[in-house]
Amino acid sequence: WNNYAMNKDKKTLNGLLQDRYGYSHPLPFNLNETLETLLNHYSVRSYSSKVLPKNTVELLVAAAQSASTSSNLQTWSLVSIENFDRKNRLASLAGNQEHIRSCPLFLVWLADLSRLELLGEKRNLPYEGLQYLELLTVGMIDAALAAQNAAIAAESLGLNIVYIGGIRNNPEAVATELALPPRIFPVFGMCVGYAEKNTGGSIKPRLPQAAVLHHEQYDQNASSKATDMYCKTMNQFYLQQNMKTNGDWGQHSLHRIRGPESLSGRDKMMASLKNLGFKLL
Amino acid sequence: WNNYAMNKDKKTLNGLLQDRYGYSHPLPFNLNETLETLLNHYSVRSYSSKVLPKNTVELLVAAAQSASTSSNLQTWSLVSIENFDRKNRLASLAGNQEHIRSCPLFLVWLADLSRLELLGEKRNLPYEGLQYLELLTVGMIDAALAAQNAAIAAESLGLNIVYIGGIRNNPEAVATELALPPRIFPVFGMCVGYAEKNTGGSIKPRLPQAAVLHHEQYDQNASSKATDMYCKTMNQFYLQQNMKTNGDWGQHSLHRIRGPESLSGRDKMMASLKNLGFKLL
Repeated sequence: WNNYAMNKDKKTLNGLLQDRYGYSHPLPFNLNETLETLLNHYSVRSYSSKVLPKNTVELLVAAAQSASTSSNLQTWSLVSIENFDRKNRLASLAGNQEHIRSCPLFLVWLADLSRLELLGEKRNLPYEGLQYLELLTVGMIDAALAAQNAAIAAESLGLNIVYIGGIRNNPEAVATELALPPRIFPVFGMCVGYAEKNTGGSIKPRLPQAAVLHHEQYDQNASSKATDMYCKTMNQFYLQQNMKTNGDWGQHSLHRIRGPESLSGRDKMMASLKNLGFKLL
Repeated sequence: WNNYAMNKDKKTLNGLLQDRYGYSHPLPFNLNETLETLLNHYSVRSYSSKVLPKNTVELLVAAAQSASTSSNLQTWSLVSIENFDRKNRLASLAGNQEHIRSCPLFLVWLADLSRLELLGEKRNLPYEGLQYLELLTVGMIDAALAAQNAAIAAESLGLNIVYIGGIRNNPEAVATELALPPRIFPVFGMCVGYAEKNTGGSIKPRLPQAAVLHHEQYDQNASSKATDMYCKTMNQFYLQQNMKTNGDWGQHSLHRIRGPESLSGRDKMMASLKNLGFKLL
């Protein structure tokens, strides 16, 4: 297939879809700016020192707050970090990822049940529902929907991002660093900045639609066949990108989830949540 | 403040921001199509019978698959439902929300650990990491990022959406209806369709940025003050929209989380997850 660099100058919907799947996957729609921004996403882990426009974070937050939120409860918050020493400490806590240090803006997205708790305290009204796993789930989903809007807004401005799941490696230490009150969980981080030039990222192929999209009921057989096909597509992609991987997609994905020792500390998430004040009823 | 209808014909960034916050909140950026789509979001719960363009779901899925996914594990799937009887049964399971019946396309977004499990089985490689809460969290976040991309893509095409958290009211019955294998959790639903005419939605104000955006460290005092201010902003909004609410935002939000009896069955989520095959180590 074409790699992204080849059709960078003349993006078409079907060119973007071909890059996204690693094979031709035409669809009968016109490309618009928003679809182009969405389909053109790739993560960037190498940032230039170029300063962001004034008020970038406020614009990203406005986009984030425009996302849906369960019952308008808005059970999320974020901490915006520009201080180098703090980024440096957070990088150490999140698997020593250099781009956390080098990006101009690092965001930590939070599932935040403390705001409603404080309101309940002030009004002397009960808030026992916050103790249930459901409300933590709501907070994590709310944070994810908000963050994805911020990511899309950033990319529409020519900025790049990468999500940092490593923020969950040491959630209690992150909470201390960010002075989080109880009942707040750091869900993930996000680097924001301009990509370093000449480190051109490229669109990574995803699973064929038959692996993820089911009609009316789940079809495990179709999903399994499409997954096998994907491993071949990705082999081609790794070759083309000169990427060295630990076997094919199936093998290195399984390696990533082989057991507690492969979870970078996140096997202790249940205990961390309890320490952060979540009862998880 | 201006309501959305007043500046519908001539959208400006600062007009959209004013609607989003309920007060003037200018930012020094130019509006682009993507930002307009993001900031212009409101949920729609009344759908016309107008048929969707051919291959709409495939386009939304391509946008969804373009979102970031933790370690490229792609631990999510979705079931697309157009059959009226199935929508009707799902509506009954999800708090009898009429728009689940009336929307032309209903999507159920899934945290899907079964795909990697099956791969591990086929290759005789271990996948014990899937038993940890971390991996369910990854699946839920992956599903949320994907769904939000689909939502934005839909709105960029002139369609409307609403998220359906009610799909978690009865996750085991939903799993049976959709023939889900074990280790798949239905995270939320999403109605997609054209808004019924003359039921114009409007942008709902969100918390002031001081309530959700923290610089360097979390500032609970600033958040609390901004939250009190928001209750007043929302009182104005309810009045303007002729909405009858159970007290102010603080009061009805606290009512929503007052205890297990206010969670519509979702207080049993931990037990449901175990029944669906999640060990939650």
